[in-house]
Amino acid sequence: MLPERLTRLVNLFAHLPGVGEKTAQRFVLHLIAQDASLTRRFAEELALLPVHLCPCERCGFIAEVGEPGAPVWCVICRDNKRDPRLLCIVARVQDLLAIERSGAMRGRYFVLGRLLSPLEGIGPEDLPIATLKRRLAEGEISEVLVATPPSVDGEATALFLARELAGANLRVSRIASGVPHGGDLEFADQITLGRAIEGRKNLG
Amino acid sequence: MLPERLTRLVNLFAHLPGVGEKTAQRFVLHLIAQDASLTRRFAEELALLPVHLCPCERCGFIAEVGEPGAPVWCVICRDNKRDPRLLCIVARVQDLLAIERSGAMRGRYFVLGRLLSPLEGIGPEDLPIATLKRRLAEGEISEVLVATPPSVDGEATALFLARELAGANLRVSRIASGVPHGGDLEFADQITLGRAIEGRKNLG
Repeated sequence: MLPERLTRLVNLFAHLPGVGEKTAQRFVLHLIAQDASLTRRFAEELALLPVHLCPCERCGFIAEVGEPGAPVWCVICRDNKRDPRLLCIVARVQDLLAIERSGAMRGRYFVLGRLLSPLEGIGPEDLPIATLKRRLAEGEISEVLVATPPSVDGEATALFLARELAGANLRVSRIASGVPHGGDLEFADQITLGRAIEGRKNLG
Repeated sequence: MLPERLTRLVNLFAHLPGVGEKTAQRFVLHLIAQDASLTRRFAEELALLPVHLCPCERCGFIAEVGEPGAPVWCVICRDNKRDPRLLCIVARVQDLLAIERSGAMRGRYFVLGRLLSPLEGIGPEDLPIATLKRRLAEGEISEVLVATPPSVDGEATALFLARELAGANLRVSRIASGVPHGGDLEFADQITLGRAIEGRKNLG
């Protein structure tokens, strides 16, 4: 019933995270109903994406491709005002952006791209551990802050990283977990409250 | 923090139905992390979409663009085995596809593209009534089956169409609404049950 060309594009949209076949079809049908100039602009920007942007070779954040042969580093890796001793490990680029917005991290980052997840079949061999160790072998780094989310997969990944990095003469730390700012204790779940009490600090 | 090029593509993805800025950003970050060949293929297919496909000039379904100057009609409008007397009006291409799958409709279609919706600011002037009337003026059609969904907007649109088409020497019918096949009366809502009783048929 539908042209093969349309189905091919639907399958490509279905590669996007969280997009199934129905949603992908909805996207394509929407584009066909729109003015052709929108789709053309969309295609142009998409075609230029891999020409100009790629993951930072050093940390996995977004980098702009420059001269051929030059190392493709992101703005954070190229920023000399960053503390070279502190490396923050995050799961996703979005998490890096959230931490940057907080303004509380003055070091650099390393983006894992994924978390250990037995349910999704993601094991230790799927994590970029070799790249991380190469990064650490550059020297200078004295503390690794593991900022994976406080979820089952995030905690498992943090424990795995702590074991992998043990003996490397590094402080390996973990972001605190507890009741969020502005959060209501009444509605906090048991695990969050448990962590808030376990991780308590001395006052005064 | 993020390159302007990335933000431009995020804004284009956010044009897709149901996609907000966060989701669009997730799509783009996903593509940057993938092999560049996927994004290139995606861009190519997208660029060719408006070159090869457009809404059918006659009914609004998907049509393949052929010789320049030739009328751009879809496979259904070009199918001479269809009953030329029956025209089924649907809201979306997806609804047309669902009806085609049922095999119960042997006529042709007309896709409105939208429903009347005071909440979304869609009024009668936003419906393609002039195109519909041109279609009906081709002659041959003796029955218009209004297959907009049995929702508030769908019913309002059906009533509006019935009024617009009154006096055109046409039978204007409406798809039946009631308890769906395999549905449980216990869990059917009141309006559905009310319609099932109101629309009852004689047995034997």
